[in-house]
Amino acid sequence: MDLHLKETQVDTEVAYEGHFLKVQRDTIQLPDGQRAKREYIKHPGAVVILPLMDDGKVLLERQFRYPLHDVFIEFPAGKIDPNEDPLDCAKRELQEETGYMASEWQFVCTIHNAIAYSDEHLDIFLARGLTPGESKLDDGEFLETFTATVPEMLAWVREGKITDVKTVIGTFWLEKMASGQWKA
Amino acid sequence: MDLHLKETQVDTEVAYEGHFLKVQRDTIQLPDGQRAKREYIKHPGAVVILPLMDDGKVLLERQFRYPLHDVFIEFPAGKIDPNEDPLDCAKRELQEETGYMASEWQFVCTIHNAIAYSDEHLDIFLARGLTPGESKLDDGEFLETFTATVPEMLAWVREGKITDVKTVIGTFWLEKMASGQWKA
Repeated sequence: MDLHLKETQVDTEVAYEGHFLKVQRDTIQLPDGQRAKREYIKHPGAVVILPLMDDGKVLLERQFRYPLHDVFIEFPAGKIDPNEDPLDCAKRELQEETGYMASEWQFVCTIHNAIAYSDEHLDIFLARGLTPGESKLDDGEFLETFTATVPEMLAWVREGKITDVKTVIGTFWLEKMASGQWKA
Repeated sequence: MDLHLKETQVDTEVAYEGHFLKVQRDTIQLPDGQRAKREYIKHPGAVVILPLMDDGKVLLERQFRYPLHDVFIEFPAGKIDPNEDPLDCAKRELQEETGYMASEWQFVCTIHNAIAYSDEHLDIFLARGLTPGESKLDDGEFLETFTATVPEMLAWVREGKITDVKTVIGTFWLEKMASGQWKA
């Protein structure tokens, strides 16, 4: 299958392991038999939550993202813990970051955000039947929550006010699901 | 502005510099005055091309992405060279990867694909007035091209056959532009 495209692992090593990022460096064989190196981030995967209120509004976050030195509008999201089920992770992250719990959960889709240099995937879930509670942010985590309608979010995507990929894609999916065109 | 969210740089160092990835490690001050570390990939930025043929079909690529050990359906894309104008980069990458040249170019949007651990941004351009020519792939670069309609691509996004974020977002934008709802 696709042997004219496939790259095969010859050797693998950890090139860098920091407190947050892990870089893997593999020797590979190219489709033409030549050898090359591939460096990439080893990532445990993450979840994204689309929290849809009973009044049709969406629960969002504003968070400072240091690599880009700016505040981003985002859906709640977080890294999957070792051996954690993605849905359990979504429930945990929604509650920790926003305080909300949801009575209805549906898987929406999986996306890959940096296929050239990371093995990260993000599982997106729709959360409904929301009830508020108390958030418990990690030490050193600062964010604020607010709500917006799907049409407002679409306008922000169009204008470039929402640029975070998980949030752009979640917004388009919410429009498709709200119109009944697509189902989670 | 947003001082209750802002993180300020105290110190910065290169933590890892490989042949492909560069990891930066900064000491920062949190909004509450505490110090912390932030590790992230330094990336030059990239461009994505949405090549729309005169018959309404879209030019796409299939490429093996080693970090995920799978072939992905993608729009043509590539990294911006030092001091290169993003539009020039888009023209160069489209021609190198597919052989095509375009007579009409329009900026669509900028997206950020890994805001937790990379400063990468992607500038997306719409390319029309396409004429075929000869591709010149980089050494060690293997990919194949094909065409699909926007409705086909939307079905693939919905079914999980397209999961690459730049390609998912470009597909949704193409639908918005084709319907006349949004303009590039």
